[in-house]
Amino acid sequence: MKKYEHGGDIYNNSVRLDFSVNTNPLGISDRVREAVISGADAFGVYPDADYAELRRVVAEHEGVKSENILCSNGASEMIFAAVRAVMPKRALLIAPTFSEYERAFLSVGCEIEYYTLKEENEFIIGSDFIAGLKSVDMAFICNPNNPAGNIADRALTDKIADVCAERNIICIIDECFMDLADNGYSMKGKMPVIKAFTKTYAMAGLRLGYIIGDTKICGDIKKQLPAWNVSAAAQAGGIAALNDGGYIEKSRIYIKREREFLTEELRKLGFKAFKSDTNFILIKGQSGIGERLLERGILIRSCTNFRGLDESFYRVAVKAHTDNAELIRELGDICG
Amino acid sequence: MKKYEHGGDIYNNSVRLDFSVNTNPLGISDRVREAVISGADAFGVYPDADYAELRRVVAEHEGVKSENILCSNGASEMIFAAVRAVMPKRALLIAPTFSEYERAFLSVGCEIEYYTLKEENEFIIGSDFIAGLKSVDMAFICNPNNPAGNIADRALTDKIADVCAERNIICIIDECFMDLADNGYSMKGKMPVIKAFTKTYAMAGLRLGYIIGDTKICGDIKKQLPAWNVSAAAQAGGIAALNDGGYIEKSRIYIKREREFLTEELRKLGFKAFKSDTNFILIKGQSGIGERLLERGILIRSCTNFRGLDESFYRVAVKAHTDNAELIRELGDICG
Repeated sequence: MKKYEHGGDIYNNSVRLDFSVNTNPLGISDRVREAVISGADAFGVYPDADYAELRRVVAEHEGVKSENILCSNGASEMIFAAVRAVMPKRALLIAPTFSEYERAFLSVGCEIEYYTLKEENEFIIGSDFIAGLKSVDMAFICNPNNPAGNIADRALTDKIADVCAERNIICIIDECFMDLADNGYSMKGKMPVIKAFTKTYAMAGLRLGYIIGDTKICGDIKKQLPAWNVSAAAQAGGIAALNDGGYIEKSRIYIKREREFLTEELRKLGFKAFKSDTNFILIKGQSGIGERLLERGILIRSCTNFRGLDESFYRVAVKAHTDNAELIRELGDICG
Repeated sequence: MKKYEHGGDIYNNSVRLDFSVNTNPLGISDRVREAVISGADAFGVYPDADYAELRRVVAEHEGVKSENILCSNGASEMIFAAVRAVMPKRALLIAPTFSEYERAFLSVGCEIEYYTLKEENEFIIGSDFIAGLKSVDMAFICNPNNPAGNIADRALTDKIADVCAERNIICIIDECFMDLADNGYSMKGKMPVIKAFTKTYAMAGLRLGYIIGDTKICGDIKKQLPAWNVSAAAQAGGIAALNDGGYIEKSRIYIKREREFLTEELRKLGFKAFKSDTNFILIKGQSGIGERLLERGILIRSCTNFRGLDESFYRVAVKAHTDNAELIRELGDICG
């Protein structure tokens, strides 16, 4: 096994505060936890392989039909399965972005072209992305993107959808962080959209993602998924999460306030904090700050293994206020 | 979504007794359930992507090194990932057998040759299987096989391992039902072996499988697996299961006694019951018996979608004694 590629390595470090993963700062909801606990007696039997009830509530939540929903063991499984369903020869990826798209493309021997986001453009995708949509079969867009957290211009994603439709390019948009963002929008109905309970409902340990797509792409991906890929625990948790009205709205308000607090305080400390619309912030400052924080039991996400970023970049999650204040205090102590 | 391909469709039927799935009749152990419940607070955070502690206890349990263990979201995920790691052009499969091997081969466009088990040979694999190991890249053997439940002759599996090594054929042996069988043996060290907590520890709702293989095959398969493929619930449950000393031994004794009871009673009722070494029995009798039982709330596994079997075959799980006695009573009533 190689070294951790992602955030969240609280297993090999002594960590009291983990700012390296981007799950909802309100944490797993009581309803979800209770649904899992009360469902535990049923974990001895096979889950519904068609997860009909879960699909029904997800479809209702998204305003689509059940046949347009396919669920997975986290968004990461859906990314791999989608790539296998398409079997692209050549793909277009944004850099930097979430690394599982690249891993999935490489797992089928697909060549990858990179559209590099520029620091001077605040790592925001530009209309020149369209020019990259030539001689490729497939693309992923993460929106809001990881690690900078900004939302792509709506007119641009509309244009990308049109161009991909014209050129038969399967462009999948990953909206895992959209529900936690301000002024968010969804491309569902125009492109296949991947979402996850992982981040939105802080259910990372239960693994539940889904795609909203037409019946063609859902059918193709289904063939690539093993039977019973959605555990009974994830099904119970997912259904409970969507019945927890108000949780997302409350989360969004909380995140906005805390993101503004963190951004302002980080800038006061001399960090460059890029504009984010969601629950994490990309910062640039002195390298080695991650190690200094880890000595104090605080883990932030080093961005060195993000394509195009170096050791001066870190990603910081927006967490609960007391945690955020603690981070700022410790950083002030280190930098001061 | 198409109709259920497997047993366990208690979601579209009114079922009080499910004999259609082959999980341990002792059910999920209290330790596993308690571990999942007490771990629920941690389901909001990402599971250990390298599941180091789980691999350590599985490796210890199997008497191998951690580097020879790779875990998955149920055995079904491992089957698909292994096929993708090998990307065979042509494969050899036993028929009838568990259908996920075929689905996995078809998902990569692989051609399949079938080695057909014969009713007159009690559906036991014979030495003529070796002759099929020509111009194929890959094979799966399910041992004990599903649905007949018999164990292949040890000398034959040894010979198969030798032939595959000589001819560079990746032959994976699925030993998911071996720990519940009498006089079982493992081919680990000689072939890649797939196992699952699903059946052995009745953890079907939690999804946890693994492969025991050399570092080459484990490394190749790892590239095909999405990040965080093993949920925190499965990790907690798996570790607890392996700490539950005596559960398997107790299960094996219980299953043997109940299998003998069921086999004898089924034969008395006029069914042909094939010799099984594990926790399910293939029977042949009047077609339509499944529908008649379902009217009474009892589900058995129709074998019509097993390649080479027809509507006169059913697979019956070995369950708790009171359940087994109830099945016999109801069958007696229907047949009498």
